[in-house]
This record gives sequence, C-alpha cells and structure tokens, in this order.
Amino acid sequence: MDDVTIPVPELGRRARVAAADLAVRTRAEKDAALLAMADALEVHTSAITAANDADVARARENGTSEAIIDRLRLDEARITGMAGGLRQVAGLPDPVGEVVRGYALPNGLQVSQRRVPMGVVGIIYEARPNVTADAAGLALKSGNAVLLRGSSSAASSNAAVVEVLAAAAQTAGLPAEAVQLVRGEGHEPAKQLMRARGLVDVLVPRGGAGLIRSVVEESTVPVIETGVGNCHVYVDADADLAQALQIVLNAKTQRPSVCNAAETLLVHADVAARFLPDALSALRTAGVTVHGDDRVRAYDADVVAATDDDWAAEYLSLDIAVAVVDSLDDAVAHIRTWGSGHTEAIVTRSLAASRRFTATTDSAAVMVNASTRFTDGEQLGFGAEIGISTQKLHARGPMGLPELTTTTYVVTGEGHVRG
Amino acid sequence: MDDVTIPVPELGRRARVAAADLAVRTRAEKDAALLAMADALEVHTSAITAANDADVARARENGTSEAIIDRLRLDEARITGMAGGLRQVAGLPDPVGEVVRGYALPNGLQVSQRRVPMGVVGIIYEARPNVTADAAGLALKSGNAVLLRGSSSAASSNAAVVEVLAAAAQTAGLPAEAVQLVRGEGHEPAKQLMRARGLVDVLVPRGGAGLIRSVVEESTVPVIETGVGNCHVYVDADADLAQALQIVLNAKTQRPSVCNAAETLLVHADVAARFLPDALSALRTAGVTVHGDDRVRAYDADVVAATDDDWAAEYLSLDIAVAVVDSLDDAVAHIRTWGSGHTEAIVTRSLAASRRFTATTDSAAVMVNASTRFTDGEQLGFGAEIGISTQKLHARGPMGLPELTTTTYVVTGEGHVRG
Repeated sequence: MDDVTIPVPELGRRARVAAADLAVRTRAEKDAALLAMADALEVHTSAITAANDADVARARENGTSEAIIDRLRLDEARITGMAGGLRQVAGLPDPVGEVVRGYALPNGLQVSQRRVPMGVVGIIYEARPNVTADAAGLALKSGNAVLLRGSSSAASSNAAVVEVLAAAAQTAGLPAEAVQLVRGEGHEPAKQLMRARGLVDVLVPRGGAGLIRSVVEESTVPVIETGVGNCHVYVDADADLAQALQIVLNAKTQRPSVCNAAETLLVHADVAARFLPDALSALRTAGVTVHGDDRVRAYDADVVAATDDDWAAEYLSLDIAVAVVDSLDDAVAHIRTWGSGHTEAIVTRSLAASRRFTATTDSAAVMVNASTRFTDGEQLGFGAEIGISTQKLHARGPMGLPELTTTTYVVTGEGHVRG
Repeated sequence: MDDVTIPVPELGRRARVAAADLAVRTRAEKDAALLAMADALEVHTSAITAANDADVARARENGTSEAIIDRLRLDEARITGMAGGLRQVAGLPDPVGEVVRGYALPNGLQVSQRRVPMGVVGIIYEARPNVTADAAGLALKSGNAVLLRGSSSAASSNAAVVEVLAAAAQTAGLPAEAVQLVRGEGHEPAKQLMRARGLVDVLVPRGGAGLIRSVVEESTVPVIETGVGNCHVYVDADADLAQALQIVLNAKTQRPSVCNAAETLLVHADVAARFLPDALSALRTAGVTVHGDDRVRAYDADVVAATDDDWAAEYLSLDIAVAVVDSLDDAVAHIRTWGSGHTEAIVTRSLAASRRFTATTDSAAVMVNASTRFTDGEQLGFGAEIGISTQKLHARGPMGLPELTTTTYVVTGEGHVRG
C-alpha cells in the first residue's frame, strides 16, 4: 500500500486530468469498469478485511463503542454488499448525454441543453468504510473523478478499498486517478479539500450534523448540504386514525437512527382524544419515550414535559416529541419554525388538507398518507443515493446520478451572428 | 420616502413571511401584480427621475465618469423600458407547479417532483438602477420574495423604484415585503446580506468580476456565480473562413463590454495563412487591438506581443488575444487552461470536429458556427434573464425563471409504511 500522502491540490490536479478523460467515456466503458471494480473487491476480500482488522483493533484500543465498531467493520458479507452496489450502479442508466431541453429558435439556431459530468466531486464522510465504494461507483458512473475523505478511524480500510478500486479502473482502461483517497491525519486534509475551489466542483458531506455544519461553514467549494432530518408526522382532523398509528410507528421505530425517521408528532385537537391514548400506549410498547406538551401530558402523566430543545431535536433514537395543534396551519407553522426542511408527512382523507399541507410546508419531501421513511433514493426508485439534500440549490431531497451532473448548452448554427 | 434603515436580519424575517405567502399565489395573482407594478412605474416617472437626478448630481460632484453616469441615469425611455420588462415577465409561463418528474412506484406510491419557489432571493448589483425592476419582476414571477442591494451611487433611484414597486404589489393584494431594498452606506449592508444564511436562500451577484469574487468568497448564503466571460472562438482546419470572419467580428465587436463577447481567437495552423491576414486586417479596421503570439505576429508586425495576462484577460474592450494552435485538442487545452467556463465557439464544417469540441470543452455554452453573443436568456428564448451562471451547481449558463425555483417531492400513498 502506498504510504505517501499527496497534498490535496496535487490530488485535485490529477483528478481534473482524470475528469477530462472520464467526461468523454461511453456508458459501456464506465459500466465495464464498475463491474471490474466489483469483481476486484470480491477477489481482494482478505486484503480488505485485514486492513479493516487493523482499524478495528486501533478503535478498540482507543475505547471506541461497540456500536461505532460495528459500523466500522468490513466482513465478507459487507464487501459482497459493496460489490453488489457497484453492479447495481452499472445497471442504472447513464445520466451523461441526456438532453434536458432542446428546441429550434426562430432564426434557425438549434439549442440543446445536455447533461455533462460535474468534473471533480469531493465526498467527506464518517466511519462506514462501505461508503468508499458506493461514492466511487456513483461518481464514476456519472463521469466524475472523485476525491474521498473518510474518517481517520477507517484510514486503513479506506486505503485498501481505494487501492483495489483504482487498480481495477485502470485495468479496465479508465484513469486510476478517477478514484483517489485524501490521506493524512487530523482535520487538515479535509480543510484543504474544502478550500480546493477551482479544483473540486462540488463537495458532499455525508455524516452527522456536526460534520455537515463544519463543511458548510468552512468550505469555499460549493457544498450540497445533506441529511439533517427533524421530520414531522401531522395527524389531521380528517385522518384515518388506524392508518395514522401505523405510519407514526413505522416512521419512528422502523429505523430510528436515520435522517428520515420521524422526530415529532403533531395531532389535530379534534382527534387528539380519540388518537393520543392509543398512540401513546403503542409508542410506549414499542419502547419509545414521549416528550409532550401540556395537552399531550393530560392524556398520560408519564409523558416527559417537552421543551424547545425537543421541538428542535433530531433525536435519532427511540424518543419522540408530541404536540396537539388547533389547525393544519398551526401544524405547518410549527414545522416551519422547528423543522429542518427534510420530510414531513400528513395523514388525512381530505383532499383540501392534503393540497394545503403540500403547498405550504417548505421541505424537500412531503408524504401524504405514507411514512417519512420513504424519502430515500432506493425507495423512490433512483437505484442509488448519494445522500439527501436539505438545501434548495441544485438538488433537494434524495440525490441520484443526475444530481452529480451539470448541464451545458450546445447551440448550432450556420454562421449565425447577432444583429 | 422612508429614511429608516432596517437591519438585514429583520428585512430577512419579513421577506420569509412574504415568501410563505407568495409561494401559494396563483399565476393570475402574480401577473396582475406585475402589470400593476409596470403601470405604477410609468405613473410615477417624475418621482423616479427626480430621485435619479439626485444620484446623478452626487455622482457628478464625486467626479464620476460620463460612461458610469450614463449607466446610472433613468430617463423616461428607460423607465418605460423597465415597465415593458415587467409586462414581458407577466407574459411568461409560471415555473411554479411544474411537475419535473412524476411516476408511480411498484408499491403504488405516487411520486411527483414539483417546482416550488426558492423562498427569499438576494440580488447584489452595481450601478444600473433598472436592474431593480428586472430583478424584482423575475423574483416575484417565480414566487420568491427578493432583497435588493444596489450600489450606494444609485441609492435614491433604487429607493424610489422599490417604493413604487412595493406599493403597487400591495395594492394588487401581494405582501409589500415581496420587494425590499437593503439600505445603508458602505460595504456593511451587503456583508450582512451575505451572512444571512437561513433567511436568504440564494444570493445572485450581478456586476463586475470584483463584486462577484467578493460575494463568492464572503458569503455563507449559497451563491450563484455569474458573468465573468473569457470567451473563445476557435477557427478549425475545416472552417468556412468567410463564416469564421463574420463570427469573429460579431463576437468581438458587436458589443465588446459584455460577458459573452469574445476575448480570444484560436486559429488552426492549417488555415492560419489563409485566414489570419484578412482577419487581422478586418479586426484593425473595426478598431480592435490584436494581442498575438509569435505565429500570429509573423503575419502582421503591428500585432502586440501577447503575454499570459492576455490569455487570461476578460478585456471587455476592443482588444482580442489571438493564437495559432496545431490541433483542435490544443485549442481545447488552451481554453481549459485560460477560459472562465462561459462560452466557446467553434467554426467548422466537420461533424467530427464539432462533436469533439462540444464534448471536451468544459463551459456553460458551446456555439457551433454561431457567435458567442448568443449565450443570453433573451436570445435563447427564455424571455428574461437573471444572469449567466458560470458555476456548475444548480444553474449553468443563462438563468431564466425556472432557475429561481427549487423542487419538492410529493409522495402520496394509502397508509404506506416501510417493511
């Protein structure tokens, strides 16, 4: 394994050269490389798990929790999963070359707006080393070179995975610099990546709220903000209450640690008496701690008194904040005040309520009679997901391959000049 | 006129309230307001020109050049032009509500990705006070509230225009805070606007390279970078040389002060001897100063020796840098090294050359046998233009109304939960 740490600007220059090459590759060439990368991961499983063992041993020495160590671990099954992910990406349509708009102007000029790769994509991510293969595959398929910065705790695993991927890409005829790892200890390498304006076209942080905030604040490279989710379920006066209960339980408990899990339940006052006793009891049975306002606590003395911190919280745990609201508009106002713009759900049989809720909440996704958990690239049929954008610029909501591209206008004439 | 300077954060909060209201307005309501704003500008022409006279007088006292004073001036004709611009925007389709993608998932969930307003748009611009009405109209039509920061030299004119526009919007039933001016002396108000993350959704600087650079570097609000154009015309070995000459002259001289004017001419060595003597002579006749490399100067001793500064220059004047290149790929390499990613043109009869040039230059627009001057929202049929983006995120090339929107996913089910 190469131990030399190449400075980020030099990595960036190499990535730009690779990007110019990748931009003109056909889908067939890129897919062949993705399949070769998948095969190579499986062939080199033992080298990767050996590197991972070193990371895990170091984490243990440092007293890392078993939960984090579990995320860090790469066993044969996970490596097979990474390979499967790359094969799946190979099977997806190539976004590059898609004509987004095309038309002829009155003067005969032909205008075509086409998807082209971004160029160089930077990804900064936390513990899970399987992100390394996922991100590399998505970037490559969309014709981009990628600079990957994982956490120091996974440094050996990430280096082993990138070495295998880059070698496979090269064997398949693509530039080895299509996939590069940003190495080095501490915060400095990530900082350099954030300052590589002109070399890196977009930076996508994948991880916790702290990581994302620091990238958004420090980066001069354009950033796509991802993932912080304070998602709400609003049970309307016209809700099917049995449906509402299933949706609340699913949104809260099916996988509480992810950004599209629900964190707050808002219940219309008209149905509070019929809904809340069952809902609070079902949540408790499911192991959920309820933090409620006074109107909620009136139904159940065991409910913890909620503070503003609860309305703002992305718990990522078996906790939920619950409030009674007097109207749909009050629910929307609560969401606009406390939400993170990720996903909100309404449960209602009323078309008017559904129309108003979807029009007035200001979030990346709105679910009508469905769990917040569906805000997910795989679930929405994108085939792959690079993250969930909670910003409004460029991409909003789950990001698939097209979100890793930009467009160019190609205008064709016969000597056209302006008069 | 209101003399009180409201701090930017408070303006931002008012704008957010207005934005929530604007987001649910119909096209009919917005168009009625735009037409009322247009009428109001004409009705209040004398108040606006009086305010403008004060700005012009102050500029004169400060020794401002006549060229800048001409850009600053608002006479009756220009105010009629501003009103006409608003009426034209009223006639354009409303981007809000457009379903960008929509489909049903295998599980029966209906997915629809819809255009929605950004929310609050900030525009920072230089001398021309007519931008005030243009920007307000485009923001309003796309359902956004707008915070306008013009230059101090146009403070009275901008205040008068905004007062008229806001009052007309209010009379038409929209919130007066849909259009607000950021007042105050010096750089501080603009700085506050750049730091209003969470209140302002996107910032668009319109002006010179210095303004744009400072906004890109200082802003924590997402920025759309606009306008710096070091545009190239490449005359291929297979060019129709008569066509090439017309395109070069048009791209360079039709309006040299704008970002889509050509700044560099690259000529394939195979046609240099046939093309350059005529081209250099025609350029000189048109008053253009040529800065050339040694191979160009071999044809004409009067050509000024070009330095790296010339290859990098956005002259915005009757100057052009000219180089001879040995291949199309060398032309592209020159453009990738020195260009600003705005617009490049190729003149060729070869389909292969056209294909390669469009695939390998990395710019917002590529013209084939047409002048670089066509990279323009009006020319491309957008009906209006907020600026020309030279960044890759969100919008690239001329920006029309859809570029002032984002999207939201609306997912409708019948109690769908994840298994």
